[in-house]
Amino acid sequence: MTEESMTEEICAVSPKRFENFPEWYQQVIKLADMAENSPVRGCMVIKPWGYAIWELIQKELDEKFKESGHKNAYFPMFIPLRCFENEAKHVEGFAKECAVVTHTRLQADGNGKLVPASELEEPLIVRPTSETIIGEMFSKWAKSYRDLPIKINQWANIVRWEMRTRMFLRTTEFLWQEGHTVHSTPEEAVEEARSMLKCYTDFAESFLAMPVIPGMKTESEKFPGAEDTYTIEAMMQDGKALQAGTSHFLGQNFAKSSNIKFINRDGQEEYGWTTSWGVSTRVIGGLVMTHSDDNGLVLPPNVAPVQIVICPIYNEDTRSEVLECCHRLLDELKSRMFDKHPIRIEVDDRDIRGGEKAWEWIKKGVPIRVEIGMREVTSKNVCVYRRDESPKTCKSFGFSEFVNIVGNILLDIKNSLFGRAKKFRDDNSKHISSRDEFFDYFKSEHAGFAHAHWCGDPKIEEQIKSELGVSIRCIPISDAQESNSVQGTCIFTGNPSPQEAIFARSY
Amino acid sequence: MTEESMTEEICAVSPKRFENFPEWYQQVIKLADMAENSPVRGCMVIKPWGYAIWELIQKELDEKFKESGHKNAYFPMFIPLRCFENEAKHVEGFAKECAVVTHTRLQADGNGKLVPASELEEPLIVRPTSETIIGEMFSKWAKSYRDLPIKINQWANIVRWEMRTRMFLRTTEFLWQEGHTVHSTPEEAVEEARSMLKCYTDFAESFLAMPVIPGMKTESEKFPGAEDTYTIEAMMQDGKALQAGTSHFLGQNFAKSSNIKFINRDGQEEYGWTTSWGVSTRVIGGLVMTHSDDNGLVLPPNVAPVQIVICPIYNEDTRSEVLECCHRLLDELKSRMFDKHPIRIEVDDRDIRGGEKAWEWIKKGVPIRVEIGMREVTSKNVCVYRRDESPKTCKSFGFSEFVNIVGNILLDIKNSLFGRAKKFRDDNSKHISSRDEFFDYFKSEHAGFAHAHWCGDPKIEEQIKSELGVSIRCIPISDAQESNSVQGTCIFTGNPSPQEAIFARSY
Repeated sequence: MTEESMTEEICAVSPKRFENFPEWYQQVIKLADMAENSPVRGCMVIKPWGYAIWELIQKELDEKFKESGHKNAYFPMFIPLRCFENEAKHVEGFAKECAVVTHTRLQADGNGKLVPASELEEPLIVRPTSETIIGEMFSKWAKSYRDLPIKINQWANIVRWEMRTRMFLRTTEFLWQEGHTVHSTPEEAVEEARSMLKCYTDFAESFLAMPVIPGMKTESEKFPGAEDTYTIEAMMQDGKALQAGTSHFLGQNFAKSSNIKFINRDGQEEYGWTTSWGVSTRVIGGLVMTHSDDNGLVLPPNVAPVQIVICPIYNEDTRSEVLECCHRLLDELKSRMFDKHPIRIEVDDRDIRGGEKAWEWIKKGVPIRVEIGMREVTSKNVCVYRRDESPKTCKSFGFSEFVNIVGNILLDIKNSLFGRAKKFRDDNSKHISSRDEFFDYFKSEHAGFAHAHWCGDPKIEEQIKSELGVSIRCIPISDAQESNSVQGTCIFTGNPSPQEAIFARSY
Repeated sequence: MTEESMTEEICAVSPKRFENFPEWYQQVIKLADMAENSPVRGCMVIKPWGYAIWELIQKELDEKFKESGHKNAYFPMFIPLRCFENEAKHVEGFAKECAVVTHTRLQADGNGKLVPASELEEPLIVRPTSETIIGEMFSKWAKSYRDLPIKINQWANIVRWEMRTRMFLRTTEFLWQEGHTVHSTPEEAVEEARSMLKCYTDFAESFLAMPVIPGMKTESEKFPGAEDTYTIEAMMQDGKALQAGTSHFLGQNFAKSSNIKFINRDGQEEYGWTTSWGVSTRVIGGLVMTHSDDNGLVLPPNVAPVQIVICPIYNEDTRSEVLECCHRLLDELKSRMFDKHPIRIEVDDRDIRGGEKAWEWIKKGVPIRVEIGMREVTSKNVCVYRRDESPKTCKSFGFSEFVNIVGNILLDIKNSLFGRAKKFRDDNSKHISSRDEFFDYFKSEHAGFAHAHWCGDPKIEEQIKSELGVSIRCIPISDAQESNSVQGTCIFTGNPSPQEAIFARSY
């Protein structure tokens, strides 16, 4: 870095990760200019840098969905109260936190103050999820087994009236995709729910470089109205779990409440079998808490709006020569690909101090920063900083050498971020074999994941939740073993346990 | 077409275009499976075929916006009443048709019926447009001239409580993009508003093959709160005008109501100059009414989710040979480009009757349908139907000849659709030089565009609106002449008129 560099001591995020994790998190987002709070309680503004990350996520998921035969559509955001009421558990789960539209006009009262007017006969609920309204439509579309499967995805905004909000992680309005499918057999619907879980797992690990544990939710943690809820759980750098995506096998519950019936191959009328699955802007919060460090945001290359930034270092005399060299590098790099896409690259030729500029890009998490000054122009070298390494570590490469290996460097960054996050998770996970050890483990505020046998008794879940703030994140499923069904003894009750579960505090 | 073809008489849309245009329109949308009404009053469901069209529109516009330096972001959908109230004309324009959120919970009343609970202290308005909420944020982001221009775009859903709705054209909820910018001088803001109008004009004409007239709205037709509203106006096949996109120079009106102030180069505090501009799903309605015919939807190639469909014609014996040939064609066509994108192509190998299949694709508006049977396999030919020609007109091409010229055929279809629509507009436009002639022209329900001199008196506008249902669509701007400023005499008042205006009935 140039002599005018600002030092890490001055520039790093304050507080540091392990001083105050929640405040560090807010600062990382603020310093990367990803989002900020809005005048609307609990709603954030997603600024261009944060939204560009979401667009990359959307593009990747959207391609995966389409490849697996799903089609996008759009359904009304308003749900009539009667549709919403049909599924009892569902309404129980969402009624406490929904925005209700009751009027369709504003008019001035006696004092000239605008007040709601034209009250609706039936209030409308702003979708907290769309199973009920999409179910109404599916009931018209699914007439015969020939119409099935129906495989639909929607990109939409969602509202849940949250009391305590935090940017990306929990906001009143958020963005997501929600997949909704109908099948003619339960086996096919379960297969769909599981294959979308697999899709999310691959996406989290290969695209976001975020290791996750795929598994099933317990009865008490399921989606309201689901038969089975599958989840991917990631570990944040404070040891807490984040649910990064879910996929639900809904059985015939919503088919019954929405009247989705079809004539099967035997000419009999039958209820359909449905699934739903979703990933939201929350995953961006997970991304921040998985990879970022005390210097700010760290982005894996796939999800970085800018993958390489070229910063010219010049004075008045050397300006044009240095800039020319930067643009030559830009042009050459533009023809290079990373993970099947052209590399996203920028020259930052703003007239601000080199150190300030460097720190801006560090805080924005750009994977590779290249500095080119007169020394580099003369020696035909480039000076390369990797965001996953110390901001002081610079490697020098020959101009064309760098162009040739840039894809490998990006891949290496991705792998190193994944490996680092996986190691952190492993280092902060523990197999636990007694109740005492369990309570002891979760004494620490920064406890990670506990793997332990559990007999399935929901009272245990209630107890550890109220006493320790700990929940069962999932019963893991691995590719190798269909479910983690190693017989054992419940560490809480001493009863036989069919499975290990993962326990953690969570977002 | 094959012998089992269904005849045009049976398959065409009923009613025909010129029998009952509004009903024809609904039928075209229904038969193409683009959208349908939902259980929510005034809200439609955009089905996969309709949504895929919207995605193509989004992709094209999004690229154009990004190329011209705009960045995407996302702002809350809820607007606090106080933000909304700040601009007087704006609130007047939208207060009569907005959805108001007043409660944040549902709870059971004495009879177990769910009713709204937890009333908000300040009601929230679901955005009918986002100038006010985005303005609030811009007031924090624009501190100095160095922060300007700010050029933001948002893809979002919008709610306006419409009394009479029609699919795509006017729905309570719709999808759109809204650009919002702040500039340090009025000149730069006007230039932005005009350059986005140019962007929309190019998009409409080159992408949608929809000829439009760019122009300015009169005082009474402006966006509530704008200084100037620019518009593109297209003619539908019933002669009515459709406003297909608008761009507003907002002066300092919203800057004042949202307090967007910056320090200019002279160190003085000044209000910013803002613009906004938008295109919505309404443009899909315009697309339908511009190109479609009595056989259903007609899609210009750029906006067709499938540009070429290959339909195999076979019996049990020839099935595998015919299918193999279809897939060979598919593979070869996949490497071909149209307008810089790979051609979107499908083989429809469903086991349904050939005629039924052909008519499905005709009604969906796919530009090219290729039929391959044993005769074609043997002769190494393909049988090609263009959607812009009669469904009975088939041209035979050699297999590789077709592969080589397919891009030209698509281009020719686009040009022919544009030419046809332009000719229709010219044939249905008239220069009018007297008041009597004007009233006479609009006696016909299917009158088109009248070009006539108008002195600028808004009373004339009121009168022709109430007596004829006709409005001034715009004062045209052409590239050649800055505005259509040919001096003349107002046909209504005999006063000097600085300009010709375009008069029409409209959607």
